[in-house]
Amino acid sequence: MADTLVLGIDPGSHRLGYGLVIRRGNKYVHVAHGMVKAPSTALLPERLRVIADGLEKVLAAHKPDVVALEQAFVSRDPHAALVIGHARGVAMLLAARAGLTVVEYPPAVVKRSVTGNGRAEKAQVGAMIQRMLGLAEPAQEDAADALAVAITHANATGLAALLKRA
Amino acid sequence: MADTLVLGIDPGSHRLGYGLVIRRGNKYVHVAHGMVKAPSTALLPERLRVIADGLEKVLAAHKPDVVALEQAFVSRDPHAALVIGHARGVAMLLAARAGLTVVEYPPAVVKRSVTGNGRAEKAQVGAMIQRMLGLAEPAQEDAADALAVAITHANATGLAALLKRA
Repeated sequence: MADTLVLGIDPGSHRLGYGLVIRRGNKYVHVAHGMVKAPSTALLPERLRVIADGLEKVLAAHKPDVVALEQAFVSRDPHAALVIGHARGVAMLLAARAGLTVVEYPPAVVKRSVTGNGRAEKAQVGAMIQRMLGLAEPAQEDAADALAVAITHANATGLAALLKRA
Repeated sequence: MADTLVLGIDPGSHRLGYGLVIRRGNKYVHVAHGMVKAPSTALLPERLRVIADGLEKVLAAHKPDVVALEQAFVSRDPHAALVIGHARGVAMLLAARAGLTVVEYPPAVVKRSVTGNGRAEKAQVGAMIQRMLGLAEPAQEDAADALAVAITHANATGLAALLKRA
């Protein structure tokens, strides 16, 4: 089986974090990560346009095999959920247009997958990602979240492949 | 001042209603309306792709001057708000990519603008739209909502133009 290149995305309406990871045996190979930032004073449609353009560049440059997202956490603030929904919709649209499957993982699964603890703090997740991927410095928060969900999917597919072989 | 062609959109994750209206003096001229439907069993990213493709065809065919949306009603169900946000984000992105301004009106303003009553029932709004635009039959609900917000913006711009002249 060819190695799967997973693009993790942490979509927001002001910035979008992304992280690209390959699983190779027991190791995760870091390919790239970064953030797309929209001009903070721009209106929402224009911010979405900037974020979409940036994400399209990432898709074109890296040609990932699959897109992984964290399931949105909606229990508190419906207005925040609405705005996050806008950014997620844009990310999903571009993934679908690129012919990619979108997989989603609950936040607790992502945390557990990276740290072993479903209730880990953000800092723990960031530190663990830095170590797993051998990054010289910690990724910025949105990019770290994107790498975390990419690792979660790489891990899940790795397990599925191992189980198939067994 | 050239007549402004307003595209009203009622975005949803299963179907998107649209309606195109021009204001000419005291009258509203109906240009077109309809719905884009996504396959109901498809996953969200694929549904957004189908809806985006349909909306792009509408934008290319009619070349509207501005896009009008109802502000989303978020007070009850955060999960519903999240999903509606996905569809709204797609609509906003395509509007921004077409170089169009997106204007938003609260639901009560749309109802008042069409019927004179901010708490009008859906059926009243639909009947009023049919009469104002001289439609042979009532538009389907999502398309009727899209026509209603298009009329609201055409009305608001008409007033603004009159005030400017005065």
